[in-house]
Amino acid sequence: MTIKAVVWGENVHEQTNKVVADIYPDGMHGAIAAALNADKGITATTATLQEPEHGLTGERLADTDVLLWWGHAAHGDVSDEVVERVAEAVWSGMGLILLHSAHFAKPFKRLMGTPCNLTWREAGERERLWVTTRGHPIAKGLPDHFELENEEMYGEPFGVPEPLETVFVSWFQGGEVFRSGLTYRRGLGNIFYFRPGHETYPTYHDANVQTVLKNAVHWAHNEQRLTGDVNAAPNVPVDAALEPIEERGPRLHQDGEEGYR
Amino acid sequence: MTIKAVVWGENVHEQTNKVVADIYPDGMHGAIAAALNADKGITATTATLQEPEHGLTGERLADTDVLLWWGHAAHGDVSDEVVERVAEAVWSGMGLILLHSAHFAKPFKRLMGTPCNLTWREAGERERLWVTTRGHPIAKGLPDHFELENEEMYGEPFGVPEPLETVFVSWFQGGEVFRSGLTYRRGLGNIFYFRPGHETYPTYHDANVQTVLKNAVHWAHNEQRLTGDVNAAPNVPVDAALEPIEERGPRLHQDGEEGYR
Amino acid sequence: MTIKAVVWGENVHEQTNKVVADIYPDGMHGAIAAALNADKGITATTATLQEPEHGLTGERLADTDVLLWWGHAAHGDVSDEVVERVAEAVWSGMGLILLHSAHFAKPFKRLMGTPCNLTWREAGERERLWVTTRGHPIAKGLPDHFELENEEMYGEPFGVPEPLETVFVSWFQGGEVFRSGLTYRRGLGNIFYFRPGHETYPTYHDANVQTVLKNAVHWAHNEQRLTGDVNAAPNVPVDAALEPIEERGPRLHQDGEEGYR
Amino acid sequence: MTIKAVVWGENVHEQTNKVVADIYPDGMHGAIAAALNADKGITATTATLQEPEHGLTGERLADTDVLLWWGHAAHGDVSDEVVERVAEAVWSGMGLILLHSAHFAKPFKRLMGTPCNLTWREAGERERLWVTTRGHPIAKGLPDHFELENEEMYGEPFGVPEPLETVFVSWFQGGEVFRSGLTYRRGLGNIFYFRPGHETYPTYHDANVQTVLKNAVHWAHNEQRLTGDVNAAPNVPVDAALEPIEERGPRLHQDGEEGYR
Repeated sequence: MTIKAVVWGENVHEQTNKVVADIYPDGMHGAIAAALNADKGITATTATLQEPEHGLTGERLADTDVLLWWGHAAHGDVSDEVVERVAEAVWSGMGLILLHSAHFAKPFKRLMGTPCNLTWREAGERERLWVTTRGHPIAKGLPDHFELENEEMYGEPFGVPEPLETVFVSWFQGGEVFRSGLTYRRGLGNIFYFRPGHETYPTYHDANVQTVLKNAVHWAHNEQRLTGDVNAAPNVPVDAALEPIEERGPRLHQDGEEGYR
Repeated sequence: MTIKAVVWGENVHEQTNKVVADIYPDGMHGAIAAALNADKGITATTATLQEPEHGLTGERLADTDVLLWWGHAAHGDVSDEVVERVAEAVWSGMGLILLHSAHFAKPFKRLMGTPCNLTWREAGERERLWVTTRGHPIAKGLPDHFELENEEMYGEPFGVPEPLETVFVSWFQGGEVFRSGLTYRRGLGNIFYFRPGHETYPTYHDANVQTVLKNAVHWAHNEQRLTGDVNAAPNVPVDAALEPIEERGPRLHQDGEEGYR
Repeated sequence: MTIKAVVWGENVHEQTNKVVADIYPDGMHGAIAAALNADKGITATTATLQEPEHGLTGERLADTDVLLWWGHAAHGDVSDEVVERVAEAVWSGMGLILLHSAHFAKPFKRLMGTPCNLTWREAGERERLWVTTRGHPIAKGLPDHFELENEEMYGEPFGVPEPLETVFVSWFQGGEVFRSGLTYRRGLGNIFYFRPGHETYPTYHDANVQTVLKNAVHWAHNEQRLTGDVNAAPNVPVDAALEPIEERGPRLHQDGEEGYR
Repeated sequence: MTIKAVVWGENVHEQTNKVVADIYPDGMHGAIAAALNADKGITATTATLQEPEHGLTGERLADTDVLLWWGHAAHGDVSDEVVERVAEAVWSGMGLILLHSAHFAKPFKRLMGTPCNLTWREAGERERLWVTTRGHPIAKGLPDHFELENEEMYGEPFGVPEPLETVFVSWFQGGEVFRSGLTYRRGLGNIFYFRPGHETYPTYHDANVQTVLKNAVHWAHNEQRLTGDVNAAPNVPVDAALEPIEERGPRLHQDGEEGYR
């Protein structure tokens, strides 16, 4: 059984900017999905902003192992309902990989609980990614560092929570650094933020970047998936307690009552 | 200079339930504020749901070092605007201490990015809190464990992100355990979740619990506060780069342009 | 290719104590290896204290994906040379699973850098393990809690570093709690501490415990292995710098010199 | 009451190398202690390798709140007994700040349980430190970045455990990055590793570096100190259990017996 990946693309600049369209004639999502499909263990399809429900119906998410997300110009056009649906899918075990400008995508901000802000400069400068957690599954097959000759700069401080692990840190020609690969877990879902990928450069055609993405899909895949209400907060009745106890003192709730939310 | 703490109380059951009113004649928030004010280093005031803007105007939050939050029956009545204001205050450096049923309070869920759910039982059973991070500032002056003879049970799994530190773990008479004291940082703000505090028991009159709260206020206080836009993502122009670089390749943005959100 | 696991057993009480010998006629290591071998993806063998070099030659460790360690009465008899060899194997990518009283095993203390102490009581009391990180690979296939009717008690505070993840927390009949399943990474090596397993009880015959061990072997296995000196600190000569720089200022080291250690 | 800091200096190159002696006529330890003493909340003294017991008797460590450690050429000359004494002091609550080449100091390696290796180049190149955890107490009063015009380069991967927090990341002119400020806790002791400080450059005369060191002393200071045996693993007798239990099943240990180590 292969891992079912869905590459979500905003698909705006591919339609409106000739530079981007020339680099990614099948869309950035198309290029990324093609790269993932070169891995025999992954079956990748795509979804875009313009599709009904942005291509992310509840049914589709329930059948998705790992969702990759690229967005930039149209973060605000993503419906809050879909964002909440994505968050719930992550909590139930779907992996989520956020790419580049998706640091400001609604699902990432929703799951981090922070501004996710940074500094930036669009100058086509050199970026060099260093592996900081050698041997991490996401860094498998990579050298200790690799370069992207032209990239947008993102600089620290990066307004995210302390990660579980810092996998990559980037060096920029103009003098900045950035924590470029960060892992998180939210509920049963594994989350990976990966920095490179400005749309005016051919980043997703880079072999090392493709290796990271394939590794990240394998890493983010959780074989377990919670079914049922991911927000459930079940009452455990006194007579079902694992150790015999007797009820004592006053209480607010009546038997069988739901808790407050 | 003392630390300015604000104890936010939902103030519902104190008004509607005789048991709660008898235990906390000045409200739970009143009892907690009184306990904090016994510490010479803290000046605590209160705010409640029923006040205009729930007592949490932008001005007040800007003047608050640490906010404590107790809510239960009326989580849904808290305005989303105030929740966002609290989140921004935390990101800019205000400490936040979430008490008991505030695991489902909107600001906590907003800042965690997870369901924050658990199992529960209201049976007045014994809870014993164990210090797991000995020497943590929040555990100062406490023995290795202390008991609350009557408490509501909260059981694992607790649907929160992996914390920075697990300070306390609770044992329950009915057979459950719970990570009762957890630390997080979001932006410049220190966050502490502390489990005990069901309204039908005199938990906030307990000396050890009061010690935890006073310690937590000191711990959560950040002397630094970010002024200005906590969500800012400033562009760094090419000619202001720290190392001399020349612009290369195509670009999306024009000089002086804001980034996308 | 199956994962090569080695179960290291101290093998003392199995030889000297009739109770232990009756429960584990093939040794505790034998019982654990048999349980692991029931998983088609794992090939488990054993090694014991009494073998030359405790059965852990450099060659054997180089060919081991995951090492499981059970010791108790004879921690002090383990040679420091083998301990260092195990630590280096972990840094280079070998997984390590520490079982029960191995909290005081030399390799664990070596890799944690802390006392690894706790409180304890041998009374055959009930232990109930709760999953705190639902969906963690090590908890796959387990219910939210499971019980061991007779176990030794270990109590907090547990003198270990804050873990990457707290996977299990135990409840004990006598009133204590313990963080029973903790993950760490040291170098390329994944480390898991798992609490249960006192030798006078049939813990390693328990189906849930066996599930944990099998899951943990899969989790701890790192497909990557560092070859060469795991302690290397290579000099990068000026003329090999990735960005052109010129040497400036005074220096201590001559060209081609090793650094200090 | 001021914080009692001890600055431990190897004091070798100050005696043997004219460049170092000229920059630090009172020794590096002397310069650092002087910088700390400019803070009214700190009283700093010094200790060196050449003193009996390296100046770190048990009595002195018991009276030390925070120990700073700079070593390079003579790591191997530090006695293992003193290293163990330092580790025990940290576990009991003494703060420890490791400076620059102390990444290879015995106490750091002892407390991390990893090789602590890295890549390096001595070329007097520019280092720029970026704050990654804005608002961290150790970064108080600093701008988002600051520069050291001449420093030795240290490059990733840095062979240390995942830290509690990454406070600084360095950019180097030659193309490398390094996690320059990392926090850990071991037992009750707070630990901070801070990268800059090669002896042939005037780094410890830099105002920003001095700010970091003063902040770090305040941050590392734990008002709590464990007295008694920091390695104790006390038995809890059955009749002293917090919840009434009866002994069941066979046992290894007799009443009043010590556990195995």
